[in-house]
Parts: sequence; structure tokens; C-alpha cells
Amino acid sequence: MELTRKLETLLRSLYTRHGRRKSGYCVCEGVRAVGELFARRPELVRFTVATERGLAEYGPVSGALYSLSESRFAEFAGTVNSQGILAVAAIPAPPGEETPPEVPFIFALDGLGDPGNFGTVCRTLRSTGLDELWYTKGSIDPYGDKAIRSGLGVQFALKLRCFENLETLRAAAARFGYDKVFLTDPHQGESCFTAPDLFQRSVVVIGGEANGVNDLAAARRVTIPMPGNYESLNAAQAATVFLFEYVRRLTTA
Amino acid sequence: MELTRKLETLLRSLYTRHGRRKSGYCVCEGVRAVGELFARRPELVRFTVATERGLAEYGPVSGALYSLSESRFAEFAGTVNSQGILAVAAIPAPPGEETPPEVPFIFALDGLGDPGNFGTVCRTLRSTGLDELWYTKGSIDPYGDKAIRSGLGVQFALKLRCFENLETLRAAAARFGYDKVFLTDPHQGESCFTAPDLFQRSVVVIGGEANGVNDLAAARRVTIPMPGNYESLNAAQAATVFLFEYVRRLTTA
Repeated sequence: MELTRKLETLLRSLYTRHGRRKSGYCVCEGVRAVGELFARRPELVRFTVATERGLAEYGPVSGALYSLSESRFAEFAGTVNSQGILAVAAIPAPPGEETPPEVPFIFALDGLGDPGNFGTVCRTLRSTGLDELWYTKGSIDPYGDKAIRSGLGVQFALKLRCFENLETLRAAAARFGYDKVFLTDPHQGESCFTAPDLFQRSVVVIGGEANGVNDLAAARRVTIPMPGNYESLNAAQAATVFLFEYVRRLTTA
Repeated sequence: MELTRKLETLLRSLYTRHGRRKSGYCVCEGVRAVGELFARRPELVRFTVATERGLAEYGPVSGALYSLSESRFAEFAGTVNSQGILAVAAIPAPPGEETPPEVPFIFALDGLGDPGNFGTVCRTLRSTGLDELWYTKGSIDPYGDKAIRSGLGVQFALKLRCFENLETLRAAAARFGYDKVFLTDPHQGESCFTAPDLFQRSVVVIGGEANGVNDLAAARRVTIPMPGNYESLNAAQAATVFLFEYVRRLTTA
């Protein structure tokens, strides 16, 4: 099938936040990202667009499929060297406000501005077996095309919850009984390698690339020791340190 | 001063590996990267190119400075939204073959193909206080413009040594008395959180994004436990887990 003008317009609009908000859809590009989407949330898929090469790489697709030539596909792809396949999917609804998380602790991002980092954090989180990712509105849209590509579509396997700010995030966590908050801080606080209870009914907040985490009364500060005195671990690396310190405690307890 | 045609040609050539190899220079772009270069290896700087904005952001530059308009600068910059400053510098010579490393263990990259990941590993390494980074030829060029931007110029603060392959790397390490080799493996091996002697006169090798590490007889396998059973920690994240497991052992011993 050839893509209709209407779907073409929809697809193009999904590369902007405004377009995603208006339609409720997002674009998921690449073999692995599409694979994750179909494996996890096939009911969200509205249609797939692929070249012959993309289909050969991916295998058969269920639902509406539009086949395009390489040059036509390139008009729609978000990457220069595309893998020749993308799917348009409904943005997953967040868990209901009364649905409690089932994780030992809540991992949260505050004002994370880089889509590549956001996607990387999604993948890292998933590799730890945790499935809740909370974030504040100052962060980039996790359903933007870059964040989905960088996350290899892992967004569709996670429960993402967005909050107005850290205070509303904290309040929501507390209602579920996650009542300790740890803010990561490059300069001060307990070491993440020794702080007790760090991952027990707590919220661990990683700050944005530029500003670190916003302030919050009654939060404890926790820091990553850096013998190199070089302050430039990016947010995705800091997230990795915390997430795998959790795995370490889990697997060596 | 206006840029001469000759320097213009040189600068343009540095965006290719061939051009860098031919001239022995590299291009270092952005306020932080240029700052690192000037702080660490000022003797390597050949000239600086900046816009008024770039200079205002960076401060005074020593040595030859060429001022360009924003539009002229954009012709040379490797980024769309540049910070208006770049420097051309001689690629640092590696330490002499007889110069022993002064680190407890050697961190090595085998066939790391993504410049962004290579740069991120440089920054993470530096934050741990280690200064040796060894890599095999199958990796990208750490002095390419993207790797330097992503590494924020940390390359100029590290001792980088390049080897033909893992076998020659291993032999060089053994000559200095680093005689245990640990290959990171996504599937098997001792846990990185419990393997003894992991960071004691050893070499820890992280593999490329696609293929994992190449084989090597007499190497021990070490793995990152992943409760999520999701195999897609990228190489920079895997490097972070190992490097900060080293910091953890160092700071909690």
C-alpha cells in the first residue's frame, strides 16, 4: 500500500512535541525499536512503514503496512542511515494514579534535557529488571523520535510516569509508601556505595545534565565518589552507577 | 587575523582520518574541550579559530587566533549549534614503549566503533582518576572531531596507547607486569562485583558495541549481572559499571 496523504501528514507531525501531543501518537524507528514495540505493546501500533530492505531485516509485520522505496522512506526517517523500518504507535497511557509500583525503589529523572541520555537510561534501567521510570516535566519527551531510537524502544516495556515537578513526584511516591528521597549531588552527601537504605522504599533522583537536581526539603544527598576530581560524569553515566550499585547489592546480598 | 587559504585547507582536512594521519593534527571544538586542551597540553595548540561569541564565552586565548564571523565559523564547525570556538592541535604522541603505566590496572577498549561512546568512556575514566586508556586499532580514532567533542577534550589529559590487536595489547601489558586479562562478556564469567583481583595488576577489556570482545587465550571472563535479562547495555554503560566498581572497592576498602 502507498501511504495516504493524511497518514503522511500525521507521520511528519510526530517529529515535534506539539504534533505528538495533538495526535497522541509517536514514531518508533529502527529494527530493534520496532521489535520491542511489537513484542511489548502490539495493540498500540497503528501502522508500519518499511522499505524492502527494512522488511527483510525485520521479518513479517502484523497490521497495516506501507511499503516505500528507499528514497521515499528517507523523506520520513529521522536518521540519515535508516534501517528502513518505522512504526507509528499510540503513546502508552501512564499507569493509573492508584496503581502502585512493584519495584523496591523508584528511579527518577529530574530535568533531563538530552534525548540520547534519556534513551540510554531507559535501556540501562531495563537491564536491571526495574520497570518504573519517573520524571519531571522539565525533561525531554521520552516519546520523541530520538529518545525512542536511543532507547531502542524500551519505553514500551517500561512504566513511565511524568510529574509537574520534584515536589509532586515526591508526594506521589510517598502516597505509595516510598517515603525516603535521595538526591544525587556531584559535590556532597553520603557515598552511593555505602549509604544504607538507598534502594529500600526510596526514590533516587538523577538531575539534568546542566543543573543537577532541583532542591527538595527533607531529601538526603547522595554522591558518587570521584577520585579524579573531574566533574563531568554525564547524567546517563551517573544513572548507570546508581542502577548497578543496586544490582550489586541485590546480587551479593 | 583572517584564516589563510592554507590553514583553511588544513582545518577542513582534519574531519577525516586520512587528513589527521597525513598532517598529525586534530580539531578540538567547544568551550570545555578547548579549555581542557589549553589547560593540559598548551604546547600542542597550533592555532585557535573563534567568533566574538566564542571568545566572550571562553576568555583570552594564547597563541595564534583567527577571528571569524558566525557564518564563516559555521563553515568549519563540526556541529550545527557550535559554541563558536575550536583549536587545531598536534595529536599527542603516545607514551614511549618503555614508559610504564602508573595505574593499578589497565582499562582497554577493543573495537569500540562509536565516537560518542569513546568520548564518554574518556570522561568517565578521567573522573575515576585513572589516566591510561589502551585500545585496539579496530576502534574509532579517539582524535576525530566527534570523539573529542563527546570527550570534552579529556583525550588531552589521558595517556592513550593504540595496539594492532588484543594479543599485542596483552603482550605489552604483560611486559609491564600487568599479567591478568579480564574480558567482559555479556553472557558468562565471574560477576564483576565479586571477582577477586579484578583491578590488581590486570587488564580489563571492554568490547565493541556490536561484537563484544575478541577472543584471547588465557583470559578470564567477567560479566555484569543483569537481572532484567535485557542484553543491551551499550559499551559506555558497561565501561561505567566496571570503572565505578573499581572506585567502590577503592573507597570502601
